[in-house]
Amino acid sequence: MAEGEFSALGAKTAVCYLRYRGEDVVAVLDSSKHGQTAGHVLGFGGEIPIVSSVSEALELDPKVAVVGIAPRGGQLDTTLRKPITESIEAGLDVVSGLHTFLADDVELVEAAKKSGSRFWDVRYVPETKLVASGRGCETGAKTVLVTGTDCNVGKMTATVELFHEAERRGMNVSWAATGQTGIMLRERGLCIDRVIADFIGGAAEELVNFEGAGKDLVIVEGQGSLVHPGYAGVTLGLMFGVAPDCMVLAHQAGRDHVRRYDDVAMPPVADLVRLHETVMAPVKKSPVVAVALNTADLDTASAEDAVSRLRKETGLPVSDPVRSRGSAILDAIMESLS
Amino acid sequence: MAEGEFSALGAKTAVCYLRYRGEDVVAVLDSSKHGQTAGHVLGFGGEIPIVSSVSEALELDPKVAVVGIAPRGGQLDTTLRKPITESIEAGLDVVSGLHTFLADDVELVEAAKKSGSRFWDVRYVPETKLVASGRGCETGAKTVLVTGTDCNVGKMTATVELFHEAERRGMNVSWAATGQTGIMLRERGLCIDRVIADFIGGAAEELVNFEGAGKDLVIVEGQGSLVHPGYAGVTLGLMFGVAPDCMVLAHQAGRDHVRRYDDVAMPPVADLVRLHETVMAPVKKSPVVAVALNTADLDTASAEDAVSRLRKETGLPVSDPVRSRGSAILDAIMESLS
Repeated sequence: MAEGEFSALGAKTAVCYLRYRGEDVVAVLDSSKHGQTAGHVLGFGGEIPIVSSVSEALELDPKVAVVGIAPRGGQLDTTLRKPITESIEAGLDVVSGLHTFLADDVELVEAAKKSGSRFWDVRYVPETKLVASGRGCETGAKTVLVTGTDCNVGKMTATVELFHEAERRGMNVSWAATGQTGIMLRERGLCIDRVIADFIGGAAEELVNFEGAGKDLVIVEGQGSLVHPGYAGVTLGLMFGVAPDCMVLAHQAGRDHVRRYDDVAMPPVADLVRLHETVMAPVKKSPVVAVALNTADLDTASAEDAVSRLRKETGLPVSDPVRSRGSAILDAIMESLS
Repeated sequence: MAEGEFSALGAKTAVCYLRYRGEDVVAVLDSSKHGQTAGHVLGFGGEIPIVSSVSEALELDPKVAVVGIAPRGGQLDTTLRKPITESIEAGLDVVSGLHTFLADDVELVEAAKKSGSRFWDVRYVPETKLVASGRGCETGAKTVLVTGTDCNVGKMTATVELFHEAERRGMNVSWAATGQTGIMLRERGLCIDRVIADFIGGAAEELVNFEGAGKDLVIVEGQGSLVHPGYAGVTLGLMFGVAPDCMVLAHQAGRDHVRRYDDVAMPPVADLVRLHETVMAPVKKSPVVAVALNTADLDTASAEDAVSRLRKETGLPVSDPVRSRGSAILDAIMESLS
């Protein structure tokens, strides 16, 4: 369900779900692109049809309706309420990453009682009152945090690509999902931005210790950005809770302002590399070992050009983890950890 | 109620309450110091007696029992449950800054129903889903954030001293309470470390806009520390939400590690000054204009020596806001804002 927002750079949850769990998808809902296919809009997703209503989707026999967009602040707005209600009335289970929980909405709960629908509010976090120790993962696993210069630059995508590449290399690896889309894909995780502020670090520490059990490496999905006016607290709390052995910095080529904050210019990426290392240092010496550059909206030549320029600027390995399947970045991680 | 912890450097809430609202206090509860006076233990608080039980305190006709200690993680432990229960049974109202709410405790609620006691859980925060704009206070008031190098270094004390000094100078000033003790003293405010992580900045922004209405200056109590493994997310979220015009850095003389984190060495204060300015810069150019040095556990000569050494190290005005009543620090703030 990506009403009005289905595009390569919008509807993040829907797009990532299609990228990594596309085999589970029977239809995308966006009446503004009705009749097109996912493949046509995204360049992947093949013949999965885009439908204009839940009733049209029902002909394809779905079992689950996934909320594929993430409105600012995570509210349940009218655009979303209609297809969610229709899905529930049709007996579909509903997965939602909204801050507003479906399970707290009296109308939706009543409708679900009648139809037998179940809800998974992926942002729901169990109450935790653990303050971070600063020691991060203590299972023996090494940890990498994929942090980013902004929201929606590809932290989760880089994390998943690195995980898949590590699996292809036969490594004993796990990944920790910390945001709504990642949790849906992973079918577990902890929505770190939903934790009470005092316990962000403690929750992150619990998560890496869970994912680190019996593993050699845990790749942790970062959240927000150290320069994001709204979400930087989440970012730093997660950094200190994970206390990673090294970091990868995700960035989108051409992003010159923090998204939705025209007043906040994006500092040069090289400065942001130093900022992350400087801020992290009092708790843990953790180098940024590579930049994961999102070039999704560039053609091949422009993408190569952007990668090469950022390599020069930062002196680090730079690579688009989708185009390169995470290979060069994982090399940099393994070299740093060895 | 400061059972087992009443001293100049412990029982922070009790000590601050005595310092700034001592005229409202009839007794301090700490059986380990039974028979002594607040003045004897703290150097202020005069003849206020230290009692060993709630029943002993009742002879002095109290109306309200204040939880004066803040156990790590804010839990309601057995040491606290006993005097709280006795207070409720005696019909006292109870004020608590614990993370665990009295109003959520079935036993305590039942007892209060019988006796008529009322609870004020000062950490309770109304649900907010506001993401920070990055613009901070927009009422026309200037803002100063009193941030710190660690927990329990004197951020709240510095804030209150600066507020009192500004009032003595006839300024049109307010202060924003962001932690449990400050909120008790101010009788309003917002417990920023209790907000859901995504909304730390938004809540801080709301608070400064509330306190800034009709004022020329708002002094904001900081929380945690940028180098605190557990609480740094709160600190940074508050910094970006307030987007202050300038900052004061609170520090305790001799603090060479983050409290309760023996592995985390305190960086030099001069480095921390730079760190705050560097981290703040992408959202707002905000200089650290002075250091508020807590010298509570030093004699006068040692205190003067510590102040003078830190002045040399940082090149900034340094002053103990309690000994100097905030005067030199307020001068530095006003010079920066002019």
